[in-house]
Amino acid sequence: MNGADSLCETLLANDVDVCFANPGTSEMHFVAALDRQPRMRCILGVFEGVVTGAADGYARMAGKPAVTLLHTGPGLANGLANLHNARRAFSPMVNVVGDHASHHLAHDAPLTSDIDSLARPMSQWLRRAASPDTVGRDTAAAIQAARTNKVATLILPADSAWGELGSGTVPAVPARASAAQVPDARAMARAVQALRAPRRTALLLGTGALTEGGLAAAGRIAQATGVRLLAQTSNPRMARGVGRIPVSRIPYPVDMALAALREFEQLILVGAKAPVSFFGYPGKPSEMTPPGCEIVELAESGGNALEQTLLELADALGVGRDAKDGAIVTRAERAQPAAGKLTVEAVNAITARLLPENAIVCDESVTSGASFYAMTHDAPAHDYLQLTGGAIGVGLPMATGAAVACPDRKVVSLQADGSGLYTVQALWTQAREALDIVTIVYSNRSYAILRGEMAQVGAAEPGENAQRLLSLDDPAVDWVSVARGFGVQAERVDTTERFADVLKSALAGKGPFLIEALV
Amino acid sequence: MNGADSLCETLLANDVDVCFANPGTSEMHFVAALDRQPRMRCILGVFEGVVTGAADGYARMAGKPAVTLLHTGPGLANGLANLHNARRAFSPMVNVVGDHASHHLAHDAPLTSDIDSLARPMSQWLRRAASPDTVGRDTAAAIQAARTNKVATLILPADSAWGELGSGTVPAVPARASAAQVPDARAMARAVQALRAPRRTALLLGTGALTEGGLAAAGRIAQATGVRLLAQTSNPRMARGVGRIPVSRIPYPVDMALAALREFEQLILVGAKAPVSFFGYPGKPSEMTPPGCEIVELAESGGNALEQTLLELADALGVGRDAKDGAIVTRAERAQPAAGKLTVEAVNAITARLLPENAIVCDESVTSGASFYAMTHDAPAHDYLQLTGGAIGVGLPMATGAAVACPDRKVVSLQADGSGLYTVQALWTQAREALDIVTIVYSNRSYAILRGEMAQVGAAEPGENAQRLLSLDDPAVDWVSVARGFGVQAERVDTTERFADVLKSALAGKGPFLIEALV
Repeated sequence: MNGADSLCETLLANDVDVCFANPGTSEMHFVAALDRQPRMRCILGVFEGVVTGAADGYARMAGKPAVTLLHTGPGLANGLANLHNARRAFSPMVNVVGDHASHHLAHDAPLTSDIDSLARPMSQWLRRAASPDTVGRDTAAAIQAARTNKVATLILPADSAWGELGSGTVPAVPARASAAQVPDARAMARAVQALRAPRRTALLLGTGALTEGGLAAAGRIAQATGVRLLAQTSNPRMARGVGRIPVSRIPYPVDMALAALREFEQLILVGAKAPVSFFGYPGKPSEMTPPGCEIVELAESGGNALEQTLLELADALGVGRDAKDGAIVTRAERAQPAAGKLTVEAVNAITARLLPENAIVCDESVTSGASFYAMTHDAPAHDYLQLTGGAIGVGLPMATGAAVACPDRKVVSLQADGSGLYTVQALWTQAREALDIVTIVYSNRSYAILRGEMAQVGAAEPGENAQRLLSLDDPAVDWVSVARGFGVQAERVDTTERFADVLKSALAGKGPFLIEALV
Repeated sequence: MNGADSLCETLLANDVDVCFANPGTSEMHFVAALDRQPRMRCILGVFEGVVTGAADGYARMAGKPAVTLLHTGPGLANGLANLHNARRAFSPMVNVVGDHASHHLAHDAPLTSDIDSLARPMSQWLRRAASPDTVGRDTAAAIQAARTNKVATLILPADSAWGELGSGTVPAVPARASAAQVPDARAMARAVQALRAPRRTALLLGTGALTEGGLAAAGRIAQATGVRLLAQTSNPRMARGVGRIPVSRIPYPVDMALAALREFEQLILVGAKAPVSFFGYPGKPSEMTPPGCEIVELAESGGNALEQTLLELADALGVGRDAKDGAIVTRAERAQPAAGKLTVEAVNAITARLLPENAIVCDESVTSGASFYAMTHDAPAHDYLQLTGGAIGVGLPMATGAAVACPDRKVVSLQADGSGLYTVQALWTQAREALDIVTIVYSNRSYAILRGEMAQVGAAEPGENAQRLLSLDDPAVDWVSVARGFGVQAERVDTTERFADVLKSALAGKGPFLIEALV
């Protein structure tokens, strides 16, 4: 029994039984240990951004961590962008990063790098396994940290993996139970007071508060007090559709965000941060709340008990489970999108209309999907997952991980074309694992979001260099060819009718399918 | 005139006129400034690993830095693996990483991260541009650092880019000339003494010593003294083929490396480090030289004057430019590979035979290309570029950058399939820029190098989990479909005859072409 075995035993003993991996030589003892543990489901990503993005999607839907296996500093580096998104999503995750054997590090072999410095910015918990005997305890500590909604990274030197455990070392270490989080009584009293005050107030619901139950409690509070319900611009997961309370999201553009918040005198934060703009701009504020708006923090970001907090807040206000909550109950009639040339609006409208009951929507549509959200408050009940950290390239991996977590639910992956290229290799994992994912690529062949930003700072008519940096049309990526190359069935469509037909058929089938929507 | 303009002016004033880029919102003022500078050639990569790997390949062939444009911490992170390789290759490079405006950082907006911590492990020079007025000086300092064979990273907060220069600030700052490096007289005397001693001696030639001129001087020294010439396992660039001095490379496997060095009593380092194994293994040494072998450092790794050092060493030994150097002058006759099912050996033999004069060979073939090197000492003269840092995924980007640097030379890109998937998006840039690159993908549909490592540490017969992590055959990637999807012509071949025909035709043509060789 070596350190790597102790790692696997400890993971399984704590119900971590999915491993997204891209291994290298320094992790071969870990791979051998995984091979002795058929209970562990090992899923290969052929690029590390796929591995970490999938672990994020898995965590959001499974509500528990997967483990990732990454190869030394460069392998970790390739996965960092999606760890950044996972950290911003408060997704529980355990990363195991193999390193050289301790005695080999001083020799500065070619693959040596400062893994700690690379890992720290995207890991809220970080440790190096000092010996085979500590691996079990280190892994349990990582799992415990992950369960408090953290990205936990354990660096595993090869000799800590291959070394035999000392006699008496327990290989499978249980993670300590976290102290149950309870709503803070003083914060609760302040929130109740704020809600009873005659001031224009919004309740900003963050990660963990947007569950069906959390939303229902918030809905009752809103019905009783007139408070406005808001969500952040980007959310890791939100219960959405018929039967759920609809909430507005704070808009992304600064001027629209300022306008949306202008009226409020009080903002109560439930697992959210006081809203700031995504980027800073010359002459525009970073803080989106109006001057003088009082910020009341009921529960901090990343907490575990946000639904409970909202239930208690409702109780404190005397709006119990039988009170009216304002949930959407029926579907509005809408005009059919016009036939003919496909548009972004038609893609969004048709997708919202055809969404299967209990679907998981992974949204990295960036500019193209802007109108989708407005059409889904009365769609069939679904979960809605977004890009949380602004590091594009999470969409296809996140859908991959969500499908692993929920094999009985259809995943609909809304994908901007520019962003999708960063981690396009996720399609291969979708094919290998036969995951039930329909990907819709909005093929506008440009970094559309940057065109808008560029228009504000550059010349009225972009020149050659700006064109070359913002357009993706020379050559146009043939997404159908790329997807088929990775083993995923695909079709290209350019009319409303054809899009509806192909989407219907893809949703009726099983397994991965990609639709390149020319918009 | 703003900070971004000052950046561009300073780059151009110092002959940095190629920008590999993947921009985001925080770099829009930089993009606008580039747009005002048509002299700057802007090349888009649709993933940052393409950007940094291309800048590495460019630097190796152009002998001067390109600039990269990367978007905040996650964009840098995506490029780090190939910065790691560039650092190990001593490639001159200037990275510009956009960050939030300074006043916006404290608000911890979603895309905020600790860029300094991410950049440091892969950057030998790192600075944050404090204001628009310092951008010119900061850029000049970065260029100066890059010219000493360093990866230099300049973090550019958005307000340092968009802010106007103060009156009197010079926008275009010349980089200070580096002091000319000269061989160290004392080290030279020690090396001469060592070469005259009656001991078995090898000269280990590192980065910068493997030029045609450096090799010729080393060849004369070897002819006169009997010293053995060696190169490191991996080299950023080596002059190779007819007319050049052939050198053996230290083998990758530990046991073979130990055997190759066992005989030596002295090792003279010329821009190389004392050899260590790539990975540490249980019970095997890290240092590859035998106990008691004396290490004499003539010139340290990454120096600029290595060819000059070898010329002076030859002079000091009295073997002037007219002395015999042992260069290969004619081509050996070799048996034709057998017709029929294609093998790795046949791919290598045919490629070595058909290599065009003055080609640039970019080798990320990992296990498959092992026999190629032995067949090219008498191939037509060419440059040979390798993966230097062990971070796979440099091959396609490196070929891209090399082709940008040398538009009149054919680039032959030898690519392992597993490694090629990491940065497959480079094919799109090859298509867009119509680069003259023939890529040969060794399609063995497995991480072959890991199978070998696994055999040593795992069960005799790998189980389900190990199989799932090491094989790439379910589904097999259709490289032809993927390449065409990115706009690159491609063919699949599975016989010796067909491979020879397709390669001949690809080499005769112009522009990017990919051959999937089923081996």
